[in-house]
Amino acid sequence: MEESFKTLLLPYQQRIDRELHEFAPLPKLAALRDPIAYFFTLPGKHIRPLLTLITAEHFCNDYKEAVPAAVAIEVLHDFTLVHDDIMDDDHLRRGYQTVHTKWDIGTALLSGDAMIAMAYHKLLTAPSPHLMTMLEAFTDGMFVVCEGQARDKEFETRDGVSLNDYLPMIFQKTARLFVLAFELGYLSCSSDPRVLGALQEIGEHIGLAFQVRDDLLDFVADKKTLGKDAGSDWRRKKKTYITIGYQHKIKTNPQLPPNLFALKEFSAAKEAVIQAGVLDEAQHFIQERLEKADAIAASINFSHPVLHHLLKFLAERSY
Amino acid sequence: MEESFKTLLLPYQQRIDRELHEFAPLPKLAALRDPIAYFFTLPGKHIRPLLTLITAEHFCNDYKEAVPAAVAIEVLHDFTLVHDDIMDDDHLRRGYQTVHTKWDIGTALLSGDAMIAMAYHKLLTAPSPHLMTMLEAFTDGMFVVCEGQARDKEFETRDGVSLNDYLPMIFQKTARLFVLAFELGYLSCSSDPRVLGALQEIGEHIGLAFQVRDDLLDFVADKKTLGKDAGSDWRRKKKTYITIGYQHKIKTNPQLPPNLFALKEFSAAKEAVIQAGVLDEAQHFIQERLEKADAIAASINFSHPVLHHLLKFLAERSY
Repeated sequence: MEESFKTLLLPYQQRIDRELHEFAPLPKLAALRDPIAYFFTLPGKHIRPLLTLITAEHFCNDYKEAVPAAVAIEVLHDFTLVHDDIMDDDHLRRGYQTVHTKWDIGTALLSGDAMIAMAYHKLLTAPSPHLMTMLEAFTDGMFVVCEGQARDKEFETRDGVSLNDYLPMIFQKTARLFVLAFELGYLSCSSDPRVLGALQEIGEHIGLAFQVRDDLLDFVADKKTLGKDAGSDWRRKKKTYITIGYQHKIKTNPQLPPNLFALKEFSAAKEAVIQAGVLDEAQHFIQERLEKADAIAASINFSHPVLHHLLKFLAERSY
Repeated sequence: MEESFKTLLLPYQQRIDRELHEFAPLPKLAALRDPIAYFFTLPGKHIRPLLTLITAEHFCNDYKEAVPAAVAIEVLHDFTLVHDDIMDDDHLRRGYQTVHTKWDIGTALLSGDAMIAMAYHKLLTAPSPHLMTMLEAFTDGMFVVCEGQARDKEFETRDGVSLNDYLPMIFQKTARLFVLAFELGYLSCSSDPRVLGALQEIGEHIGLAFQVRDDLLDFVADKKTLGKDAGSDWRRKKKTYITIGYQHKIKTNPQLPPNLFALKEFSAAKEAVIQAGVLDEAQHFIQERLEKADAIAASINFSHPVLHHLLKFLAERSY
């Protein structure tokens, strides 16, 4: 990430950091408070609340009134991460121990549950005339994310998952919260359905690009960038944009190793997906989605330096 | 339960049953929809939504407008059960397989999470002028229940838990949702703080009595009543009103077996708690709480045949 972009993000990220560090009320019981406070203060990109704040800043002139909603969406996202880490038995998150690893499964389960209540509690303080609509969007977002997770889980034991199955799943699992981030920002002051619809589309495009970039980074990034070992999707035989795309490629290219997951070393798997051209296709998908997001933003005159830099940053070739 | 009481409950329970059987929207994905629909249609007492409906019927003349809130509190309660069963690794609930037993832990985790969103979704349709207050109470209720569960879990590994520790825990874990049941019923049409405060007290007393009765039944009821084996708390060395009370008794009565959990047979443990007089004390606690609830109800002229029968039913000596 460029230094100028980092500088631009600083005030928003500092605000979100501060809100999470000073979150109140936390549970009184240390056994529940400690894991939640721990997770809230892990370093994170805070990209969803950032989108909420810049949307409010543009459409409502000031992001301050959107702060409760921004915190709520970050806490909602945190709950999904804590529960996901239990299901996937992931031990590292953002380079730090996951809650069920540092404590135990029951503690992580309850911490995630409590976070949902804390997210709603925060959202209920949003000083917006459209609070009911925000609550409905928030509830729908949470419901859709759960269904996306369940679908992702179902894919683990299913053969023949295609990109036509995969994209609706990552819409639910990942993009829906990006949509919500824009919705909450805009609903902090306005509710014009035309603008709201455009923002929802922007959120969908960025969310899909974000997830596919995540899939791609698992093959090309290093541990420092990821906060966990590269190749963890591959090791787990996970269906991702890359591994599903590879399955498709072997049908027409007999020179490729026929089973990506049977290769002995991650380096060989990485070599195979590069050779198959799947990383290029993923990069193309990302760029296309971000261009669409950019065009829709232009159509509603939504220009914000953070959005501009973010689209550029997400589109950057990272391999 | 008397036949006349069962007849009295029928219309309310049929309504709640129908709402749960026809709950919409359920997740589209069968892997998530099936376990949720399964749990919604298990036979249950539906006592919390019943309290919501009768409170609304008395104070708002009609219970119909409180139906969404009643369904929401039952679904919230269901979520806590599904997640609890994971933590306790209980295999039977109401005589049926628990979700994580019939499916798996990940499915149960996501089903519980989705139920939270479904509960909020339902509550958001409540046609009340006090919906915001209802949402705040609901969110606080959920937060408090999570903290109560965490405290209960913490007790498992802690020595010297007294009734002074235990009662605040069961207020959080159990009674808070009874309080919420009354709050949601009353807030369906009114918000007089004096009446609301009285109803909250009634909920607290009934909730505490309900949990202590549950503790007591684990020692005296049969499998048919419990839907699981009697003595499961004892086998698990759980801190309950009975086992904590027994710990207290052995200090002054050297004739009692010094370690209840070291006894070989459940029948011997049952014999010991009877001999110690702990069941009588629990029964006394229950009756005292129910009498207080009854007196407070009288003070706000809250009389409803279901409430009257329920207080009588819960106070009945069951051993």
